[in-house]
Amino acid sequence: MNEKNNFPPNIRFEIPKGDNRLRAVCETCNFINYINPKIVVGAVIEYKNKILLCKRAIDPQKGLWTIPAGYLEEKETTEEGALREIKEEAGVKPVIQGLLGIYSLKHISQIQLIYKAHLLDSKLDPGEETLEAEFFKWEDIPWKKLAFPSVHWALNHFQEVRDKKKFSPRTNPH
Amino acid sequence: MNEKNNFPPNIRFEIPKGDNRLRAVCETCNFINYINPKIVVGAVIEYKNKILLCKRAIDPQKGLWTIPAGYLEEKETTEEGALREIKEEAGVKPVIQGLLGIYSLKHISQIQLIYKAHLLDSKLDPGEETLEAEFFKWEDIPWKKLAFPSVHWALNHFQEVRDKKKFSPRTNPH
Repeated sequence: MNEKNNFPPNIRFEIPKGDNRLRAVCETCNFINYINPKIVVGAVIEYKNKILLCKRAIDPQKGLWTIPAGYLEEKETTEEGALREIKEEAGVKPVIQGLLGIYSLKHISQIQLIYKAHLLDSKLDPGEETLEAEFFKWEDIPWKKLAFPSVHWALNHFQEVRDKKKFSPRTNPH
Repeated sequence: MNEKNNFPPNIRFEIPKGDNRLRAVCETCNFINYINPKIVVGAVIEYKNKILLCKRAIDPQKGLWTIPAGYLEEKETTEEGALREIKEEAGVKPVIQGLLGIYSLKHISQIQLIYKAHLLDSKLDPGEETLEAEFFKWEDIPWKKLAFPSVHWALNHFQEVRDKKKFSPRTNPH
């Protein structure tokens, strides 16, 4: 969606009134296709010193492990979106303790808001996007089979603030 | 964009493959119009115990006071976006100290990420979206002439953490 030559011929580019950037506009329906960065919400979730990971049942990165997370939808708070995604992917409802990280994935215009959370019981019920969900001790985390770099970041940031009640959110590591 | 009957006749609604929600699709160009929550980035900016506010030159809320903030664009980190907006609206480049608030405006599907920041000098150069920019002592803030509820929230949250080096981001007040 970022290259003009990928657009069909009925798409024109113009700077809408009051704006200062070129936007794609459909000449048939006059949609202005404002492309905004997308928000991903999720959490590193702990239960009795173990961390919840989900093995992805879908691409990208099918078969690799991730923390429960997904796109924020309309008319949700960021916490509500995180809890919805966690419910969809792992079938659990954790208690959110605070914002662990804000990761800006510039190349794909994605902003990830990852919370620190914990569970009160260990019953899991993975959804259709998850092959299996499992709790891992820190030393057993399958580091080489994690789905995305930001999963590494969030797990490491979780470990930094694991025993803290108050913490400031981390950002992309340098 | 939220009511089906506001769409032109060439727009159909369908659940795209791999998705679980109805999305608007243009039958001419096959755009899937994923409507995602939008991100606003900005900051409460301090200089020598005073807070920077900008009087809006554009609607909505033209003539009322706000903190510098605006929509995050593609391929920006949240800090880069905040600094760009602050530069555009007030002509300054503050030092960002940390995330002050995450406000979820569900009714308009907007997520605001507001930073705490400070300036090293007081030279202002307001842009075309700003009628005037001015530093206010806490007791002189024009509370009845603030543009948006979230400006109140951010200013109050700023006051709570004003002298703290480390703080957790606040969320919508109850």
